[in-house]
Amino acid sequence: MNKIQEIAREMKLQSPLMAASAEHVRNQALSMIKDALHAHSSEIFAANKEDLKAADENGIADSVKKRLKFDETKMADVIQGITDLIGLPDPTGKELLKRQLDEGLILVRESCPIGVIGVIFEARPDALVQISTLCIKSGNCALLKGGSETFHTNRALFSVIHDAAVAAGLPELCLYQIEAREDINALLSCEKSVDLLIPRGSNAFVQYIMNNTKIPVMGHADGICHTYVDVDCDIDKILPVVVDAKIQYTAACNATETLLVHRKIAAEFLPRLAKAYAQNGVTIRGTEEVQEIISCDMATDEDFSTEYLALIISVKLVDDVNEAIAHINCYGSHHTDAIMTENAETARHFQQLVDSAGVYQNCSTRFADGFRYGFGAEVGISTSKLHARGPVGLEGLVTYKYKLNGDGHIVADYASGKKTFHFQDL
Amino acid sequence: MNKIQEIAREMKLQSPLMAASAEHVRNQALSMIKDALHAHSSEIFAANKEDLKAADENGIADSVKKRLKFDETKMADVIQGITDLIGLPDPTGKELLKRQLDEGLILVRESCPIGVIGVIFEARPDALVQISTLCIKSGNCALLKGGSETFHTNRALFSVIHDAAVAAGLPELCLYQIEAREDINALLSCEKSVDLLIPRGSNAFVQYIMNNTKIPVMGHADGICHTYVDVDCDIDKILPVVVDAKIQYTAACNATETLLVHRKIAAEFLPRLAKAYAQNGVTIRGTEEVQEIISCDMATDEDFSTEYLALIISVKLVDDVNEAIAHINCYGSHHTDAIMTENAETARHFQQLVDSAGVYQNCSTRFADGFRYGFGAEVGISTSKLHARGPVGLEGLVTYKYKLNGDGHIVADYASGKKTFHFQDL
Repeated sequence: MNKIQEIAREMKLQSPLMAASAEHVRNQALSMIKDALHAHSSEIFAANKEDLKAADENGIADSVKKRLKFDETKMADVIQGITDLIGLPDPTGKELLKRQLDEGLILVRESCPIGVIGVIFEARPDALVQISTLCIKSGNCALLKGGSETFHTNRALFSVIHDAAVAAGLPELCLYQIEAREDINALLSCEKSVDLLIPRGSNAFVQYIMNNTKIPVMGHADGICHTYVDVDCDIDKILPVVVDAKIQYTAACNATETLLVHRKIAAEFLPRLAKAYAQNGVTIRGTEEVQEIISCDMATDEDFSTEYLALIISVKLVDDVNEAIAHINCYGSHHTDAIMTENAETARHFQQLVDSAGVYQNCSTRFADGFRYGFGAEVGISTSKLHARGPVGLEGLVTYKYKLNGDGHIVADYASGKKTFHFQDL
Repeated sequence: MNKIQEIAREMKLQSPLMAASAEHVRNQALSMIKDALHAHSSEIFAANKEDLKAADENGIADSVKKRLKFDETKMADVIQGITDLIGLPDPTGKELLKRQLDEGLILVRESCPIGVIGVIFEARPDALVQISTLCIKSGNCALLKGGSETFHTNRALFSVIHDAAVAAGLPELCLYQIEAREDINALLSCEKSVDLLIPRGSNAFVQYIMNNTKIPVMGHADGICHTYVDVDCDIDKILPVVVDAKIQYTAACNATETLLVHRKIAAEFLPRLAKAYAQNGVTIRGTEEVQEIISCDMATDEDFSTEYLALIISVKLVDDVNEAIAHINCYGSHHTDAIMTENAETARHFQQLVDSAGVYQNCSTRFADGFRYGFGAEVGISTSKLHARGPVGLEGLVTYKYKLNGDGHIVADYASGKKTFHFQDL
């Protein structure tokens, strides 16, 4: 057993204590974390300067450095996030069902923490704070591995958070930080101790995690999102939407990568689209049919399976909403797909038949996000259909158990017919 | 692509139509299946006789033959089950959340079918009827593989069920029966088309499935259930419970395999237990300490990791409830575990800290069952913590999607501060 496996095993042993910790203790821990982050802010900012210096030396792109930076503004944001989290109701200990099976035999389905969660996330110091506090609020123990570009900041933040949590009365191994990249593989082998893995990051990275562990994985590898422009759309209304869906943040998983256009509206819509995209620096890759209407690059079949994460979009014509649905269900990644139409029946049909976590009408695919759904912080977006789907907040970090309380009840009495069940929801 | 992969792929293409089928069409299909089973009962019973004849020739045990048999009584049972199922509310299309994010931007979380489900189940003709009708009710397409000992009965039942479902208007590939055992491996390779696998059967078989597919698996491999006899128990009350938990149906996953006994009550309890078990043909395997009090076989550490599925039970003494909890969380399979105590605080502590799908007080572990919980038919019992846990009925066969309907809403307006979200649950 390697070191990470030993720690995970010990964390698993402590996880029932974490799960049974009182709500006020968990909220107290969050409150003490807030205070400690305040008190230690100068050390944390100093650690972050080291990371930023290393980023400069390694020629890291400015867009990435913006995410690495952890300053007074970001500190204020994460502290506000913790304040919000304290105010949310306890996701554990909720009675989801209460049923009398027979006299004196009471069944309760009650929400409870999942147990031990492993989270591997990108180089963003605020992510470490969000994820660790979400796990504390939901009564889960967590193994955290952040991006190596924020090594110093993460170490400073983790030490402050962990010490405050333990001081509040939570188990020593409520949280553990994994620092070495090579320890990720050790984490993947902890299927006996870790109940859930949440990997965030590049498509290839998440795919690697999914293919190399027996632990259940929640997340999404790719985000090939579509916007379908129907014949019944209001072009003036939806032109800004298809622009927003592509350009508002190209690196996001919920940015639109493919535009499907109804053949009957193509001649009117595509020239206006080409103009709007040209103004925003978007390169169009169209099929032959598209090229007959506007001047653009050639799209191959591979384009429709590509998550560009860049100012490029593939465009294809379709006969009707059904061809759009078939294309999306075949090429998409079941993340978020939108229809632009004023026809309520067509929209209903599309939203019913597209097999994705998010199915939208007349708005940008970029709305797929826990904050924008009003869930508070999210631990990730899931394209799996089991457990949690779409943006996942606190409720994705809990499961449930059945508590059955009797008074000497035996099954033989019901099998023999001596007694019968009298189900009554309480 | 082999034949099963091709069929699964085609089923996946048809699954959105199945998912979008109206509730009345699915109920109509169930109603027509009832009628067709009635109408074709003589063919079905004749097919069953062939299976029973083969079982005789192959020297299949009587207990197994009882499960293979499909006669008027079992037919009446499954038809009653379908009638009950028709009466249950539609598990799909339920609004789980409805929230206005901002003016004109409405988010709905709506339950929907999972899509394509593969079920591999034991040689029990009634299981084929139950599983196929649960999948129809929940709008899922299903690939079914039953035990080969009921080959002829399954073929007759499936043909009747499938034809009735299609006649009612459901897609041709709403259901497909896999008959050859070697096609199970082909099914395991269908991760692009199959959303969920539900294997039922022996520990080794389910473990094999779990280890040889990338498809999410719902179910349980083993059921090492415990009953802990606390110092504060009422021996007269709980003696029948520990007998029932072991003997009522030894082959079931929810039968108790290990008894943990508080050291302080052992001298009084164990002799009475030994007598009760002796009367019921149960062999006790005890630790050295146990052997000092009663005469019994020796238990090794391996016994506490063994699912006997027989009239054998391992017995061990513990210092207190915490040692019992630690033993259960370490050796158990997170299925169902019970405490026998009159002390409400001890029970609460046990039910909070034992990390199992079912945590019971003063009743038999054998109660862990969808029918006994009042769920109607179950597709299986899950020891996974994600998605569905414990006995799983209709609600384990659905997921949800987010529908977002707007009117030209773009994210840029919210990112720039031009607009702000106004969350309001509707």
